[in-house]
Amino acid sequence: MPRVSEQHRADRRAEILAAAARLFAANGFHATSMADIIGEADVSAGAVYGYFRSKEDLIAAVAETALSAADEVFGELLADNAAPAPAHAVAVLIEAITTRLMHEPETGVDFTRIGVQVWAEALRNPALAARADAVYLRLRGNCAEVARRRQQAGLLPADTDPDHVGAAMLGLVQGFVLQHLLISGTTPTAYTAGINALFPTPTPTPTP
Amino acid sequence: MPRVSEQHRADRRAEILAAAARLFAANGFHATSMADIIGEADVSAGAVYGYFRSKEDLIAAVAETALSAADEVFGELLADNAAPAPAHAVAVLIEAITTRLMHEPETGVDFTRIGVQVWAEALRNPALAARADAVYLRLRGNCAEVARRRQQAGLLPADTDPDHVGAAMLGLVQGFVLQHLLISGTTPTAYTAGINALFPTPTPTPTP
Repeated sequence: MPRVSEQHRADRRAEILAAAARLFAANGFHATSMADIIGEADVSAGAVYGYFRSKEDLIAAVAETALSAADEVFGELLADNAAPAPAHAVAVLIEAITTRLMHEPETGVDFTRIGVQVWAEALRNPALAARADAVYLRLRGNCAEVARRRQQAGLLPADTDPDHVGAAMLGLVQGFVLQHLLISGTTPTAYTAGINALFPTPTPTPTP
Repeated sequence: MPRVSEQHRADRRAEILAAAARLFAANGFHATSMADIIGEADVSAGAVYGYFRSKEDLIAAVAETALSAADEVFGELLADNAAPAPAHAVAVLIEAITTRLMHEPETGVDFTRIGVQVWAEALRNPALAARADAVYLRLRGNCAEVARRRQQAGLLPADTDPDHVGAAMLGLVQGFVLQHLLISGTTPTAYTAGINALFPTPTPTPTP
């Protein structure tokens, strides 16, 4: 019965990933060893290495969880040729981070803590830096697509480079993650209100 | 001659601080010990501890360099009761970070790398977290003052909370720091252009 075996493999993989995520969030990437992860997951070393060859592979899998959530958000935002306001897209991303990553449902772990650890570690670890670059280019590209749609709808200046707008949108999201973790009294509602005050959303001109 | 002695003390302190900054930027806060700093500064342990009791004290002094630069920027922005556009203030901050912190003139060190290390370390070090909270509250407060001035000039909606706008402004700056370090092809010019496309600056109504 291959289906059961596949399910078993998927469950085992998820357990190892959850153990790694708990340790990365609590102790950081640098201070967590493969041996720590093997101990936390309560499986054999062979089992762990059968799924993940290195800490970098585990971090990539953790990042994939966050990216899947982001892809789903962008999929909904951009469905049916919609052209959402950039400020709205940023607010939806912040909402998704708050509800789906700060208490990730499968593990209970705050994935944003792992994100900040990876930022710091990437400055000293070229393999991790390459992966982080790819992840953030993908996110920035999705933000840029929102700006491109908005521009095609005539609601952003024609001489605007959507990639530049995407960078500013991603920056707002990253700033929220950081302030939520480091500055007391940061709430998604307050932060989003600040963005909305800065980005007055132009009203679409009704088609005659 | 107390003046010479004071100068000597100040020079010695600056040398120790530069050594610490070099090590924090290269290896991170966690992986740098007081012994490493004493070795790098080529002074006696007694000399270092005479100026700085702990790594946290050294990080606070490094942060003070960055904060002094920020205070100077805000001082200029807000001189003579000016009410600069928030997007302009963010652009000026990003310019100051690029020219004064990414290659800090006294040390040649990229202070933004130290910032990212501190963000990660603050998640596991309560003393550092308290200092980071204070530093970022001060920066966010300065951003909020720009928004308050703008609101008083009638160029931000009256029902806007300036503190919320300050949070979004600081978020844009933090996002730039992160993207500059982690995403290839990030430039201050492109990032600032993206902000300007999002924040159309209202033209002040001429006083009749």
